[in-house]
Formats: sequence, C-alpha cells, structure tokens
Amino acid sequence: MVETIEWTPGGVVMIDQTRLPLHEEYVTCRNYEEVATAIRDMIIRGAPAIGVAAAMGVAIGVQHAGDGDLDGQVDLICETLAKTRPTAVNLFWAIDRMKRLYGSMRGRPLEEIRSRLIAEAQIVREEDIAINRAIGRNGAALVPDGKTVLTHCNAGALATAGYGTALGVIRAAIESGKKIDVFADETRPFLQGARLTVWELQQDSIPTTLITDNMAGHFMKAGRIGCVVVGADRIAANGDVANKVGTYSVAVLAKENGVPFYVAAPISTLDLTLSSGEQIPIEERSAAEVTHVFGHAVAPAGTAVKNPAFDVTPARYVTGIITEKGVAHAPYEESLKKLVTTK
Amino acid sequence: MVETIEWTPGGVVMIDQTRLPLHEEYVTCRNYEEVATAIRDMIIRGAPAIGVAAAMGVAIGVQHAGDGDLDGQVDLICETLAKTRPTAVNLFWAIDRMKRLYGSMRGRPLEEIRSRLIAEAQIVREEDIAINRAIGRNGAALVPDGKTVLTHCNAGALATAGYGTALGVIRAAIESGKKIDVFADETRPFLQGARLTVWELQQDSIPTTLITDNMAGHFMKAGRIGCVVVGADRIAANGDVANKVGTYSVAVLAKENGVPFYVAAPISTLDLTLSSGEQIPIEERSAAEVTHVFGHAVAPAGTAVKNPAFDVTPARYVTGIITEKGVAHAPYEESLKKLVTTK
Repeated sequence: MVETIEWTPGGVVMIDQTRLPLHEEYVTCRNYEEVATAIRDMIIRGAPAIGVAAAMGVAIGVQHAGDGDLDGQVDLICETLAKTRPTAVNLFWAIDRMKRLYGSMRGRPLEEIRSRLIAEAQIVREEDIAINRAIGRNGAALVPDGKTVLTHCNAGALATAGYGTALGVIRAAIESGKKIDVFADETRPFLQGARLTVWELQQDSIPTTLITDNMAGHFMKAGRIGCVVVGADRIAANGDVANKVGTYSVAVLAKENGVPFYVAAPISTLDLTLSSGEQIPIEERSAAEVTHVFGHAVAPAGTAVKNPAFDVTPARYVTGIITEKGVAHAPYEESLKKLVTTK
Repeated sequence: MVETIEWTPGGVVMIDQTRLPLHEEYVTCRNYEEVATAIRDMIIRGAPAIGVAAAMGVAIGVQHAGDGDLDGQVDLICETLAKTRPTAVNLFWAIDRMKRLYGSMRGRPLEEIRSRLIAEAQIVREEDIAINRAIGRNGAALVPDGKTVLTHCNAGALATAGYGTALGVIRAAIESGKKIDVFADETRPFLQGARLTVWELQQDSIPTTLITDNMAGHFMKAGRIGCVVVGADRIAANGDVANKVGTYSVAVLAKENGVPFYVAAPISTLDLTLSSGEQIPIEERSAAEVTHVFGHAVAPAGTAVKNPAFDVTPARYVTGIITEKGVAHAPYEESLKKLVTTK
C-alpha cells in the first residue's frame, strides 16, 4: 500500500495529493512551515491525515528549534499549524496532544524533548492505522452484502495514515467476505473522489464506478445503493457532522430513499465542546478551485463563486457513527459521550 | 443577444456550445447529417433548441433532396435526426410537426415543399422565442422577491431559440422589477451551468454566483434560496420530469428545505403518451465526459463510469410546471391535460 505520510530522517514525506492520480509524486517537508503549507495547499488532506501531519509538524518544528525561548517557539509552531485549515478538528486535537506532551517535559534536556516528540508523532500515525482497522471491523457488519456502497470525497488510506475510515469500512466488509462494489462521487471541486478514491480502490482491485456528485440521488432512487459511508471532519456533541461539501445532500437523498447513511470517523474527530454542528467553522476556499480544473477555465472570466469546502449534516440524517470504540446511534448526545468515556 | 440557432442561406448556423464560454464560435451545418451530428455532439443542446435544430434539419434535408423517392428521403432524414438523442421529446415533436406538414403537401411541386418547410422551421424558431416570453410572464410572479433563484444546467437562451425557459422566468422576474440574483449549479459533467448559464447571465448583467452541484443543498439549508427553477427534457402525463442529471437531487433538497421547485417548459415538452416518468428513456453518454474535463484526465486510466445524462424527478417534488399556457399544479394528470387543450 502507498504510504500517505511518513517520518523520515530527511523530513516528513507525503504523497502529493494535488498531483494524483496522473502523477505519483512525493513531497518532503523539511521544516514545520513546509508542513503547514502542505496542509493548507491540500498536498495532504483528510481529517485524520491532517492530524498526523500536524503532529509531525510540531515534531519537526521542535527538532529544528534554536536555543533560547523554547516555549515561545513551540507556541509559534503550534499557532502556525493551527491556522492552516479551520474545519477538521483532528488538526487541533493533534496539536494539543503534542503540546500537552511538551508541557509535561518542560525543563528536560532539549534532545530528550525532541526525540520524545518525534516518537509521539510516529505513534499518532501508527495509532491512526490501528484505529482505522478497528473502525473497519466495527463497520463491516453494517454494510449490506451484494449491493453497492456509495461514498463521497476520499475517506480512505490517503485521508488517514492508512486503511481509511469510510474506505476502511469497505475494505473490512470485503475482507469479511462480502461481495460489494463502490460508487464514488467525483466530489467537486477538488475531485477527491475521481482522483483519490478511485485511484486507491483500483490499487486494491475493489470494483469502483465513478459518478458525478449530482448522479448519487439518481442511483439511490434506482435501488442500487445498499448504504452510504462517508468520513467526517468534525462531529458535534449532538451528532451533527461536518464533512466535505456535498455530504449533506447525499445524506438527505439517502434518507429520502431509505438508504442507511453511516459516518466513519475516529474518536479524535468528535468535538464534544460544540453542542451543535452550527458552531463548526466552515472553510471557504478559493474561487479558482471551482472556476478552473487543472488550470483550465471552465467558467467565464469574472465569475462570482461560493466555495465552502464543507457542509454540516444534521444528526437526524445519520444512521450511525462508526468509531474505533463502537457504533453510536441516536440520540447522539448520550451515545457519543458514552463512547468517549469507554476504555 | 447572441443567437443560438439561425436559418441562413448558407445553412443552419449555431453557436458552438462545446466551445463556450472561452470561445464564441459558430458552426454552419450545410446538410441534415451535419445538423444531426451537431445535436449528437451537443454543439446545440437544450430540449427546445434541439427541437428547432431538428426542424431546420428536416428543412435543410429536403432543400438538398435529390429527384426520385422524396417520401423515402424524408423518412431517412427524419430517422437520422430522431436517432441523435433519446430523451428530449421536443426533438420528436419537431420532426413530427415537419413530417405532418410534408405529408399535407405530398404531390405539390418540390420547390413549394422546400420553401414551405424552410418557412416552417423558421416559424418553429420564432414561436419558441414567443413561447419562452410567455413562460417568463407566467412564471415571474412565482419568484420570491429579494432572494436567490437556484437553477441547474442551462435552460436559457442557449437551450432555446432565445430568452430561455427557466432563465426566461428569471429574466421576466427581473424585468418586472424584482431584485433577485442567481445561483448556478455548474452541472457536471458537461458544465452547462458554469459554461453556459453563467456566460449568458453575465451578458445580461444578471448577478450570478457559480457553485458546484453538491453545494446546492448547503445553500438551501442556509435559507438563501427563494426558489428553484429548472427546465425539462420531457414531462410525463403524471407530472414526472426528465431533466439534466442532478435535477432530482435538487428537487429532493428543495422539498426537504421548504423551497419551491418549479419546472419551466413549453407544452411541446409534455409527453402525455407516457403515464409516468419511469417510461422516459434516459440517455447514457460517454465515460470520457466524466473522466476528462476539456481533454484533461481527472480520473485514473481504466476508471469505470456511469454517465446518465438525465434523471427523473417524481411529480411529488414539483411545486408547479410553468408553461406558455399557464402554470400547472398537482394533480398533474388533470392540470397538464387541461393546459394542452387550452387555446
């Protein structure tokens, strides 16, 4: 399997997700600023993968920190990384985790702090893969056999340290012997479905059909789709789910057609400090993502554009939230809180 | 205003809708085969415009018909044109109209038949513009003032002989003094929204914002959209509407969010011979439309694709069908039949 992100002696190496699927290229980030740029420019994307990148960003930042005010330098590193993208809570979760560890080591020799933070970033990565395997195991039973799973965006190996959340559920269902295939929404404007989901499922020989986003409802109505599984960027305490723009539409269409709609995400995607999804900040990205495809203009010059990168799916459309600790169902206020406190 | 299609002494001239918005180029079809190719390749598209093109195709075919079996030649011309695209009923309506006229003139001098068919094709075009003006007048009152109208695909001047059906309603609402703006779904895969709707509304200085198809639900939920107006390719007797793929999703999202969903179409788009939309043939177009944007691959080689060009919106999602003869409401079996028989 292709590695999404790795710690190497030369820096943080990521597969360049802006270049896939036509070009399989790797980017090496040699300092925390380059990691921040890679997150902002979506060289790496997907909430769990962003979390891993942020952890490695803190580690590489401290690795190269100079003498003098280390607290100040760590603050700057963390602030820089935190400002890259606003919606995926895993970013802040990973930064907090690294910062807490740093705080617990204050006064220790710099070399010890450095090696401990580097080790921690690698643990975040390894844990993420293990978490995704657990999400897959917990979700596999929910996938109807002999039908098609619809997914939106890319919540796969490329969106995580490996295996994937939504695509992890699909992989686990297939590993458990189910005969399923996948419909992948292309996911405009960034085309994560067409470029990334199709590509990584091809690598695993999982039968996949690409459709445009606006076809999903048509195929749900036709009875072909057994369930929808998507990832998440942030889940509020009431079960509202922020995920790639278009997820809300898929969820409404699923409900209208009696198709179960599942969200697969690690516990680190929960933000129980927010009572509802309305409080989740939604990133607005550049107009050029909509008006241009691979640099080619698809709209007239001077076109006004809205480009919210995410939307919020109210909990009432969500059949279940699949985490590494189990599957939460409505009412989510209770079920999510219970999952978080589960050992 | 730019002319979508015109009869000229040199042939049938169309603006090339595969080249807009970056290139404003015109294609001259010098025989009926070239008209058929232009329809099939979507140089001209939009149900009413296809109807006009087909009428002109019959006229130019007969104009160049040789001596000998004229009936046979007319049959071949009509069959060739009828095979171009299966969904828009206006194609068959226009061919039937020309064929009936030809039938009524059987035995007349060839020159008389030719000039009468050419005149008829031009009448079809002029009537279409007048019909769209009437649709606009009938629909303008339905558009909420001070809000945004969402539209999908292009049901504008470019989809008709001029003025447009859905965009005709928008134009008429503005002409009546309403302060509205437009959200245009980009409408993958062919990008009629981004390329054509944005372009023609820019020409008229109507404020328009481009969004990807998967954002429509998000903005409906946010309360910004006052109503949806779309065109249609074929409407069954029960009010089910075949239109550009994605229309069904927009309709479901509109209903879910309490947003009125209107279909604007001429009476010639009604197919009362079909009791329900399930009987409407849905064209499947080439995979390359999905995997490539302006020739640039957006998916890996060998990607399996579904590309239904249309979907069917069940009548229960349709708030009203705006025609040149008035607005039909549910139950559509009665209201549509009544409209058709209205003088």
